[in-house]
Amino acid sequence: MRSAFLHGDVVTASARFRADILVVDGVIAAIGDSAEWDLADTEIIDATGCLLLPGGIDTHTHLEHRVASGHTRTADDFESGTIAAACGGTTSIIDFVRAPAGVGIYDAFIERRARADEASAVDFSFHPIVPPTAADDDSFDQLVRLAREEGVASWKFFMAYPGSMVTDDVLLRGFALGREEGVLPIVHAENGHLVADAIQQLVSTDDVAEHRHLAAHPAIAEEEAVNRAVLLAERVGSDVFIVHVSAGAAAREVARHRARGARVFAETCPQYLTVAYEDYRDLGFPAVGYICSPPIRERSNQADLWDAIERGVIDTIGTDHAAFTLEHQDDLPPQKASGRGNFTAAPNGVPGIEERLMVMWEAGVASGRLSPERFVELTATAPARLFGLEGRKGALVPGADADILVWDPADARTLGVATAHSRSDYSVYEGMTVSGSPRLVFSRGELIAENGEPVDGIAGRGTYLRRKREALPALPITERKGN
Amino acid sequence: MRSAFLHGDVVTASARFRADILVVDGVIAAIGDSAEWDLADTEIIDATGCLLLPGGIDTHTHLEHRVASGHTRTADDFESGTIAAACGGTTSIIDFVRAPAGVGIYDAFIERRARADEASAVDFSFHPIVPPTAADDDSFDQLVRLAREEGVASWKFFMAYPGSMVTDDVLLRGFALGREEGVLPIVHAENGHLVADAIQQLVSTDDVAEHRHLAAHPAIAEEEAVNRAVLLAERVGSDVFIVHVSAGAAAREVARHRARGARVFAETCPQYLTVAYEDYRDLGFPAVGYICSPPIRERSNQADLWDAIERGVIDTIGTDHAAFTLEHQDDLPPQKASGRGNFTAAPNGVPGIEERLMVMWEAGVASGRLSPERFVELTATAPARLFGLEGRKGALVPGADADILVWDPADARTLGVATAHSRSDYSVYEGMTVSGSPRLVFSRGELIAENGEPVDGIAGRGTYLRRKREALPALPITERKGN
Amino acid sequence: MRSAFLHGDVVTASARFRADILVVDGVIAAIGDSAEWDLADTEIIDATGCLLLPGGIDTHTHLEHRVASGHTRTADDFESGTIAAACGGTTSIIDFVRAPAGVGIYDAFIERRARADEASAVDFSFHPIVPPTAADDDSFDQLVRLAREEGVASWKFFMAYPGSMVTDDVLLRGFALGREEGVLPIVHAENGHLVADAIQQLVSTDDVAEHRHLAAHPAIAEEEAVNRAVLLAERVGSDVFIVHVSAGAAAREVARHRARGARVFAETCPQYLTVAYEDYRDLGFPAVGYICSPPIRERSNQADLWDAIERGVIDTIGTDHAAFTLEHQDDLPPQKASGRGNFTAAPNGVPGIEERLMVMWEAGVASGRLSPERFVELTATAPARLFGLEGRKGALVPGADADILVWDPADARTLGVATAHSRSDYSVYEGMTVSGSPRLVFSRGELIAENGEPVDGIAGRGTYLRRKREALPALPITERKGN
Amino acid sequence: MRSAFLHGDVVTASARFRADILVVDGVIAAIGDSAEWDLADTEIIDATGCLLLPGGIDTHTHLEHRVASGHTRTADDFESGTIAAACGGTTSIIDFVRAPAGVGIYDAFIERRARADEASAVDFSFHPIVPPTAADDDSFDQLVRLAREEGVASWKFFMAYPGSMVTDDVLLRGFALGREEGVLPIVHAENGHLVADAIQQLVSTDDVAEHRHLAAHPAIAEEEAVNRAVLLAERVGSDVFIVHVSAGAAAREVARHRARGARVFAETCPQYLTVAYEDYRDLGFPAVGYICSPPIRERSNQADLWDAIERGVIDTIGTDHAAFTLEHQDDLPPQKASGRGNFTAAPNGVPGIEERLMVMWEAGVASGRLSPERFVELTATAPARLFGLEGRKGALVPGADADILVWDPADARTLGVATAHSRSDYSVYEGMTVSGSPRLVFSRGELIAENGEPVDGIAGRGTYLRRKREALPALPITERKGN
Repeated sequence: MRSAFLHGDVVTASARFRADILVVDGVIAAIGDSAEWDLADTEIIDATGCLLLPGGIDTHTHLEHRVASGHTRTADDFESGTIAAACGGTTSIIDFVRAPAGVGIYDAFIERRARADEASAVDFSFHPIVPPTAADDDSFDQLVRLAREEGVASWKFFMAYPGSMVTDDVLLRGFALGREEGVLPIVHAENGHLVADAIQQLVSTDDVAEHRHLAAHPAIAEEEAVNRAVLLAERVGSDVFIVHVSAGAAAREVARHRARGARVFAETCPQYLTVAYEDYRDLGFPAVGYICSPPIRERSNQADLWDAIERGVIDTIGTDHAAFTLEHQDDLPPQKASGRGNFTAAPNGVPGIEERLMVMWEAGVASGRLSPERFVELTATAPARLFGLEGRKGALVPGADADILVWDPADARTLGVATAHSRSDYSVYEGMTVSGSPRLVFSRGELIAENGEPVDGIAGRGTYLRRKREALPALPITERKGN
Repeated sequence: MRSAFLHGDVVTASARFRADILVVDGVIAAIGDSAEWDLADTEIIDATGCLLLPGGIDTHTHLEHRVASGHTRTADDFESGTIAAACGGTTSIIDFVRAPAGVGIYDAFIERRARADEASAVDFSFHPIVPPTAADDDSFDQLVRLAREEGVASWKFFMAYPGSMVTDDVLLRGFALGREEGVLPIVHAENGHLVADAIQQLVSTDDVAEHRHLAAHPAIAEEEAVNRAVLLAERVGSDVFIVHVSAGAAAREVARHRARGARVFAETCPQYLTVAYEDYRDLGFPAVGYICSPPIRERSNQADLWDAIERGVIDTIGTDHAAFTLEHQDDLPPQKASGRGNFTAAPNGVPGIEERLMVMWEAGVASGRLSPERFVELTATAPARLFGLEGRKGALVPGADADILVWDPADARTLGVATAHSRSDYSVYEGMTVSGSPRLVFSRGELIAENGEPVDGIAGRGTYLRRKREALPALPITERKGN
Repeated sequence: MRSAFLHGDVVTASARFRADILVVDGVIAAIGDSAEWDLADTEIIDATGCLLLPGGIDTHTHLEHRVASGHTRTADDFESGTIAAACGGTTSIIDFVRAPAGVGIYDAFIERRARADEASAVDFSFHPIVPPTAADDDSFDQLVRLAREEGVASWKFFMAYPGSMVTDDVLLRGFALGREEGVLPIVHAENGHLVADAIQQLVSTDDVAEHRHLAAHPAIAEEEAVNRAVLLAERVGSDVFIVHVSAGAAAREVARHRARGARVFAETCPQYLTVAYEDYRDLGFPAVGYICSPPIRERSNQADLWDAIERGVIDTIGTDHAAFTLEHQDDLPPQKASGRGNFTAAPNGVPGIEERLMVMWEAGVASGRLSPERFVELTATAPARLFGLEGRKGALVPGADADILVWDPADARTLGVATAHSRSDYSVYEGMTVSGSPRLVFSRGELIAENGEPVDGIAGRGTYLRRKREALPALPITERKGN
Repeated sequence: MRSAFLHGDVVTASARFRADILVVDGVIAAIGDSAEWDLADTEIIDATGCLLLPGGIDTHTHLEHRVASGHTRTADDFESGTIAAACGGTTSIIDFVRAPAGVGIYDAFIERRARADEASAVDFSFHPIVPPTAADDDSFDQLVRLAREEGVASWKFFMAYPGSMVTDDVLLRGFALGREEGVLPIVHAENGHLVADAIQQLVSTDDVAEHRHLAAHPAIAEEEAVNRAVLLAERVGSDVFIVHVSAGAAAREVARHRARGARVFAETCPQYLTVAYEDYRDLGFPAVGYICSPPIRERSNQADLWDAIERGVIDTIGTDHAAFTLEHQDDLPPQKASGRGNFTAAPNGVPGIEERLMVMWEAGVASGRLSPERFVELTATAPARLFGLEGRKGALVPGADADILVWDPADARTLGVATAHSRSDYSVYEGMTVSGSPRLVFSRGELIAENGEPVDGIAGRGTYLRRKREALPALPITERKGN
């Protein structure tokens, strides 16, 4: 199986150059001048006028996701969600595993991986979610087993939300263990007490219209939690990764700690960079479609987040894709309509797995804010490096999987539900025109999408990604940061 | 009852000047040139060569203090403790009320005030401690009643320690209520989970020698908690006061937030400024006498704390006086000896109520770090202003209580248990020579101590101080800081 | 000569209290309860409903000021200017001495002091201006002589403007000498090259309408110069005082350096706090009346400056009073009209010596931004302390000069040229209503103004103020800050 | 001409991977699996066990450098200097052109380029030095001509030193012109007045021993100048590059400004990272060999500089190679011996062009501080990007010049004059053992050094590098940063 991508410009996180790419058996064999290669029996992909980018890695998706309360799940399953991903140029995802009541996190992981194996169109991995009970049960033993046996290199911690929120002792223990096991702790950083207090006050004054979700998640809750997560990680010598930074104040906390050398990394999402509260405040019920946590904030936060990206404070762009429908669907449990007139009853989440690269190209590269190199770093190279996929994913280098996008910077598309592949029936990007898009999408050398439509039969072809980060010895109390 | 203080230099928080003071019926009637006054029937106090300072206010004492676990209490009761205070020039204290199990905070307050009324040699007030159960019981109703009926203008919150630690929802609710009631929330700012984790690790490795108490209270726990307290207070528009800042990192957090306009105030204590870990690390058992929380840290923190004082980041100097004895005393429950070889079993606290002004004068004024005006501000004027005693205490101005120190800047003393009036049998200041001291101490015009010794019969003469701070209307959710 | 101020509330920089004041022979004899004094032969001033404040000190005035180019002078001479000061409650001023070409700074000082002695209605002192030639002539010898013989405790340095600007070597030498002589260096902090470059560009494009003066003085010029002045002072261990901070960016530089302990002090002026570019941008010719340097900036700077005041970063409020008339006056050299259509030809300066206290009271105290205590500190106590007048001026304490304002917080006035005593024919405060004003103004116990009008015959009664700051030994190269 | 580098690991600024490199006619034709290439007629270079790195770019060298005063020149001419560069793995340099008295900068450039064309062993370019007279003569016209005609993309500005120092108006004009011409201003950032003042004080006290050079260049001079350069550049919208940051305080200024988005870039040098004042303080005369400006500072600065590198605040590592001999050399004008007993008479500079990569590998990569990727970025990729050589130099990508190092991470060498190729007779790295070194050095596919020794006959093979940066339109006064 040989293929050659000719006449394109290759983009890496640190360079852009005219070069062809030779792929053999799903792996990049060489990059350079195709005149040097024997192209007999080689499929030729003409990338004239296009860029050759590494396939996107979305380290933050929620497919077939059952909410913490258990009463509903997302509209997208692994099949529909990963087909949407493929159509948008994302060739690897990292989703989550939450242990249902009565099931251990190890078993939950095994079952969920099997589900994805059957259905996923792209390569995948998982972040197991640390249960709130972890201080008192054997969850950490199971998590360690996952790390050692299954190549799990990240654990998710929630600092907020009933049923998910862990106390600081769990953070401390989990961060310390993660250090020893080569696991990156990733943190949903909002102060759960503060959010709960805000919700309670809104409920007590019956101030719960859909758009008031924002008021339940003040920026200061994020700012506080970021600081706490960073200091607790620093205490035990662990890295820490803050998911979906949405508030300028939170980004400034990340920046402040990085400036003094703290090993904190951060993600933000396209919806926080390009959509704003002002876009849904006055919509009435459809505002429910914009409900996600942390919330889509006032437009003023966008500049702060872009600044953070430009100054290197944000490392990756994920989507937090969690698709629900506005309208009732017979084959699905209750969706966004549950939250009509009451944001507290709405499932949280917005779709975006398909749009991520196009939105970031448009708002980032086409607008002049980001170089193509930085785009590649944010959407592919840094996710691979931070989450244990380096060498195999996230960069167009010899030896890596041939996850290749033929990206046409002049192929405009208009985003919206009409053309999207998520099962969601609305889009926060509805009507947005993007000037560049992935003409062809290859996963391990195999074409999986073309001009925004999936190739037939790709469901189930994705494979599980074992991951690897460096482990460090346990840090005894005397060497922990403090006095 | 008339008296006149002649030939001294009056010191206020903003000026120092040659002036006499006329006191009538326990109140300052005039300041200036005594030639203008009729001094017949007036007792003359000759202050030649001395400064006239306002009596010290110690807003952080623990007298007759039963520890949270209930198994012991401090060596000093109201009588011995306030006599010690008087001898050192402190004429007002604010102590604490903790509700024992099964007793409401209101009743606990009433009973404790009655005890102090019988025994206290100086004027006194109390900070009630918000119980950890406050989220679920009627404690806040009782606290509000105390504020309204008893002139209680401060509540204490613990962010650490079993039996004391409150969760962030209690902080939020308490801070919001405090705002409405004119109550200043005062906070013991250490991350309780982090401290507990540190202790558990030390215990698990049997690393619990007396001096290892320091390792159980890393600076980062204080740093984190200060930030959290400030942000939660800011959320609801409340002031907040951080007691006993001991770590440079914590002082920097206070500074950082003040620099951007946050309404956070802070105290430190003489033991953090003048004693260091290096002083007790190698003492063996006697190190138990230095155990207090937060701990007495490495000497390097002293410079950070002095910097904070000099730059106006620290507002007041309190003592956190909590006296225990090293040796067994037949009439007392177990004291410091409980912690022999195991810091986790030692009651926490150091004595210092008597030494505060002398130590601060020596280390602050005599050393050139502080002006006498700043000394007055830190030890008397700012405590009065912040805690609701302005106009009556803390400043030598006409109309104020005649709490007056005739301070001799050239009367050297050597500190230590031999001359101190606390029941403690050791001193962290043992052997320290101070160059200035209170020659005469007057409370409401009445001489209560002379040359470091109490006047007879002063126990019980102290009166309860009702206090008053400005209340603000409730802050609705829409006006709380956040988005 | 005895007088008593009864029934008022005394305000100091750290307290406010009900008290009477007894004055004997121009000096405050006592403060307190007048029942204690013999009031026979004592003039009684009834201050019922009023505050008793220390007379204002304006450390930044330009009276009978000849501009650097020599071709014109201010409209106000010592007589008209100090009468205006008196009517507004200012009882001491510090003006400037610039050596004309061919005259030494010593002789210039002596002559100018004699002029003020003849004409000034209030007490006065001077900051000599360090000539640009000081690196090469004997100016510093003369300046040292002034410090030693004439009680001159401050020297002025210009970092901008042809004929005034000194290079950094002069700053270094002057700051070092000031340290040894007890002289506070005060600095006009704008980068002169940057200002000149801006002017040249504006001139080259004929973009010189009156209001474009602002474009010639970008905030960044101030920001840069403040940093440089602070670091050069720090190098030689000198204090440094930045006059008329006008830009938010400059105030932030002062704040940044103070936060790390630098000994930098700062002034701003009422016009920067209450008037804005938006007020004169569209005025056409009358905008010339708002031309001063640094310029009156966009309104957004006001919040930054108020923040700086509230956080203690600004120490004093001066006026930079430099009055010119808009219309031609036969007895005066060319005034503001010179700048018609060309800001580069207009003399710089705005009047304000009379309005300072009223404007600051209104915008500061009446608006809730400042306490009366802080008002007193900014306008009187801190100027006295910083400029060597402590003990004699700036505070209502026994032994000080009886410079007393009977300030009526409920006596509204409308400001404007109709009632002002400057010879200027316009006011940047025209039409502003203030709610409080000085009902009676006393200088050394003598009434000099009443209800905003001067008492007859006060010209010439003012006396020269010798000043005193602490000198420090020379700092050898090895102890200078650096490596 | 074909060659293939087999069995090595390629390192770019963002990735490291097993790959072969094919070079055709001096240019990289392809990277990947050599099995795909026809290797007939291809020279094979076996890189087993080695890394393949881009040839180093040293953007800061002084060869055949005549000092400003004109009385001496460096020991290394273009031949000896570039041979040393080649032996150490540096395949491109950017040196300087200073116009001698009476010669225009254009003519000086042309002459100097011709000299280098004859002698240089590696590719080269130049930064012309902006003459101090530029405000008043046609130097800027000549500099613009160089930019337009000769591909000069950087100009050097000195903020210090007699004969070199420019005033701020020259900086402003030069920065603005640079913006329009695609020229990067590079700045020697020390406050010249402060340095001169320090020297004068040292001379006046005869405190001029060799090691006292440090005292003449306090860190605060660098700190001040960095801030000024950044703000002046920001005023006109220009990038700015600070050469040889040596002080922690200066690095912190760069960090502070970058954190808020300023476009400032910075270099440091190996001697500041690995050598310290403590190394030469007590040497007596040989300390003269360590004299360079800014000086090699106390060891405490090293940690600050490494922090800056690790946090991305430093962009490039140059050498400031300026070689002089300690001993007299008959064919050279006076060298370091001029400064015996008097640092002010010593020519400034240390050699290091050959050692740069080895020292940085050892102190950076081998010590664990830097990844190989970051090493490549600092020493090759970032210099190329910032100075207009991107695509051609600084990265191993198809289409780029085949400047390739076969770097052996296990080939230890001991540095010192015995093996070095500079004409200097001492080394500040004497005796330092490095664990990795360039086994083979290729320039445009041609082997120029092997095992630290030059290939014969390489002098003169180097070619002039025209460079290209993006120009921006002139920034009118209204759009300049300020108000």
